[in-house]
Amino acid sequence: MSESPVPHEPPIYRRIADGLRARILSGELRDGDRLPGENALMAEYAIARATARQALAVLINEGLVVPKRGSGVYVRLFKPIRRHGSRRLSREQWGQGRAIWEADARGRPFEVDRVEVVLERASDEVASVLDSREVWVRRRRYSVDDRPVQLSTSFFPAHLVEGSAITLPDTGPGGAYARLGDLGVPPAHFTEEVRARMPAPRESALLELPGGTPVIVIARTAYTSGGLPVEVNEMVLDSAAYVLQYDFDA
Amino acid sequence: MSESPVPHEPPIYRRIADGLRARILSGELRDGDRLPGENALMAEYAIARATARQALAVLINEGLVVPKRGSGVYVRLFKPIRRHGSRRLSREQWGQGRAIWEADARGRPFEVDRVEVVLERASDEVASVLDSREVWVRRRRYSVDDRPVQLSTSFFPAHLVEGSAITLPDTGPGGAYARLGDLGVPPAHFTEEVRARMPAPRESALLELPGGTPVIVIARTAYTSGGLPVEVNEMVLDSAAYVLQYDFDA
Repeated sequence: MSESPVPHEPPIYRRIADGLRARILSGELRDGDRLPGENALMAEYAIARATARQALAVLINEGLVVPKRGSGVYVRLFKPIRRHGSRRLSREQWGQGRAIWEADARGRPFEVDRVEVVLERASDEVASVLDSREVWVRRRRYSVDDRPVQLSTSFFPAHLVEGSAITLPDTGPGGAYARLGDLGVPPAHFTEEVRARMPAPRESALLELPGGTPVIVIARTAYTSGGLPVEVNEMVLDSAAYVLQYDFDA
Repeated sequence: MSESPVPHEPPIYRRIADGLRARILSGELRDGDRLPGENALMAEYAIARATARQALAVLINEGLVVPKRGSGVYVRLFKPIRRHGSRRLSREQWGQGRAIWEADARGRPFEVDRVEVVLERASDEVASVLDSREVWVRRRRYSVDDRPVQLSTSFFPAHLVEGSAITLPDTGPGGAYARLGDLGVPPAHFTEEVRARMPAPRESALLELPGGTPVIVIARTAYTSGGLPVEVNEMVLDSAAYVLQYDFDA
């Protein structure tokens, strides 16, 4: 492995980025505000254009600001959604610790569109987990504050849900999990597999992602208390819009 | 919201990418093998150069292949590490379900380098969570199969760990958590906050990330059974090297 030194003092572009970030997070610079441009940064800090560009690139990569072609870099604030992976084990039950990353979902209703319900042949991965090649697939897109934040695709074994409201656009009161309960196979355990990657072009378009924004992909499998897999839900999340939280015991 | 149609049949570049991916995952194309170049793809599928480039970009973005300047695109296979966030609740206890994403950590020892142990002034976030401005910081880098996969930085309240082996390069048998136990404050609960973003230049260099590879950032806080926060551990993971798994009950 290479032995290049790890600097203790951050380089100048990073300190400039830190300063700009602090002005955004303090509320001095707000959603839609224009950041100082390359020329302004060059003059203020006596730095080269490449350094100014690097400072702005840090904030662009963090999803805090967005470049608009030919007009500069703008604040793109969106308070991330805190998604609880394990609510029953939540920290709320045993303590009142603070969070590293401020985020909240309360009082922010989701809108759902692009609902699609179809019978399909499953991918090898989904077929292997559900032990079923034929699957009913429910696709939808979630938005918060008019911003698309998540694409969600649920797969159900066709032989299990055929004839139930899970195969209809409206699953009825309580949703698909209530229908699984009606069928005698209510979900009791969940496994979530989490990855991150750059978006596919279709995902980028549907989530309206600015360049350089990765997605978080969650594959959640729901099992009955007897260990029967009844659903795979693949969620593709705008990484700038989410903090995932998981609580567990030692 | 825009109403652009969502195609059911994937576009040609995506089908080409799917075919190449299948050849990689089946083992036909192996680690270090060169993929067909743009010219070869153009000839084989009668497509434009931009389409061939798009097909290769899909696999590059997925971290399956790496472009080498002026010489083509190469398979970069690395079986992802499965990181269990909640081992005690693991699926192994109640069922034998299969996983969506094949990944494994067994039999793959981690190497640790770039260990650094210093007393520092905490960031606002860490200070707020640990209720301490002065923190002992332990930094290190983990590698698997000679590939750096994770940067890990642990923060401990200085007043709590001062004088213990947590302030020394070698924390002794059982590591830092055993020392917290010696101090009467063993970790009992964990909260993990998970995000994804593009890497900072320093992270990119230390993890030797090819362009277009995001990082997963996990901020884990360890609490005693009484709810006292005793450690914040910020982990920066090469997203191409990891699958995070969390198991929990409905």
